[in-house]
Amino acid sequence: MNTASDARLEALLLHAEIDAFNTDYAEKLDRQDLLAWVECFAEDGFYVVISRENFERNQPVGLIYCEGRGMIADRAFALLKTAMFGPRYLRHMISNLSVASQPDGSVQARANFMVIEVLTDRPEPRVLQVGEYRDVFVRVDRALKLKERRCIYDNLLIPTALCIPV
Amino acid sequence: MNTASDARLEALLLHAEIDAFNTDYAEKLDRQDLLAWVECFAEDGFYVVISRENFERNQPVGLIYCEGRGMIADRAFALLKTAMFGPRYLRHMISNLSVASQPDGSVQARANFMVIEVLTDRPEPRVLQVGEYRDVFVRVDRALKLKERRCIYDNLLIPTALCIPV
Amino acid sequence: MNTASDARLEALLLHAEIDAFNTDYAEKLDRQDLLAWVECFAEDGFYVVISRENFERNQPVGLIYCEGRGMIADRAFALLKTAMFGPRYLRHMISNLSVASQPDGSVQARANFMVIEVLTDRPEPRVLQVGEYRDVFVRVDRALKLKERRCIYDNLLIPTALCIPV
Repeated sequence: MNTASDARLEALLLHAEIDAFNTDYAEKLDRQDLLAWVECFAEDGFYVVISRENFERNQPVGLIYCEGRGMIADRAFALLKTAMFGPRYLRHMISNLSVASQPDGSVQARANFMVIEVLTDRPEPRVLQVGEYRDVFVRVDRALKLKERRCIYDNLLIPTALCIPV
Repeated sequence: MNTASDARLEALLLHAEIDAFNTDYAEKLDRQDLLAWVECFAEDGFYVVISRENFERNQPVGLIYCEGRGMIADRAFALLKTAMFGPRYLRHMISNLSVASQPDGSVQARANFMVIEVLTDRPEPRVLQVGEYRDVFVRVDRALKLKERRCIYDNLLIPTALCIPV
Repeated sequence: MNTASDARLEALLLHAEIDAFNTDYAEKLDRQDLLAWVECFAEDGFYVVISRENFERNQPVGLIYCEGRGMIADRAFALLKTAMFGPRYLRHMISNLSVASQPDGSVQARANFMVIEVLTDRPEPRVLQVGEYRDVFVRVDRALKLKERRCIYDNLLIPTALCIPV
């Protein structure tokens, strides 16, 4: 293995690490463990859920907008208390990941997501949301954390889904 | 590449091998080659299809329950004879794979699956099943085989899908 | 790392490269940049969109049939002019990739795809198409290009989707 190969391997290892992060992130949401989900973010992490329409028009108004892990945690606690995160099953499918390390040591990444919902009173699963993640990752004590995650959803959301993190 | 990198590369290669296994597994089911599908399991392989509700309540009652490749093969033959595996197209999408090798040489893995069905008399595809695989892999003559596969589906299944392996 | 490991790493790197190609290909289609999409093909690239039924019966009649990048570009321009590629959002989910390098230096690959459509006047996303890519890749100036891409879709297509590349 020469230097060129080493660089490709490093890129491959980083890609695999982000992929594992996303798998873990999705798993936390799918078992509705919002407190563990909060830990995916850096202390000053930014989290926004925004429609593709608004994103493409540079209108930063999002359905969910959180600056800092404190706000993200508040959001999670509120959800748990209001029991809106209720009697349903969610399942994330994440694919089409691309990763680019930046000169400052951070990592930019994108991936497509799909969230499938199963309600207890409906036999058929339905596609609740589809869209993409646009992320910036940083390392905190060697572990990857989200410095920024923008969840850009294609669809108009239905009311019951309004407050669910993606 | 130092020893730490070597360990990461080994993990990456194993992850890729399981990913390839799952791709192959899905391809066998999607072309309805149940006899080839049976060969994915170890001789004493365990295969169960169970609802998320039952799984989470530790109720081991599954829709399909097979202990050993003999039972799995019986199931496959029965399906082929009754022609229940009939005029429809199935397509598996597998994502969110995570892999952990165990001290005893076996490998634990999880992945999310989605099965899309197309019926000959309906123009639109529909999401037939969504859920996760929880697996234990072993090596038999160097090839990976399923020692255990639990297919845990989120949705209530519709009658026509009752007997289809996932 | 010995020679056997090196071969596995080379396979892994190639797999990652095709995966990145597919992610990029999908991203071009999802943002409706058909001119960039055309560049994914080799000069003599072959592109066909065909139903699974016809493919399995060896009937080569496809919904879209293009021999050479010129024809592919013509198709793209026609679509852009007729504005059929219109007010909707598309999102590709690609998974289940398998890759096999050939003795002549080309690469055969397969992957499953799913295209999710969101119409501006319908709140819920729907599965527009599901199927598989069967590809042959070649290198042109070191970059991978599609020498052949067969998009084999499971579902009967609905009229509005007739002319959209996959």
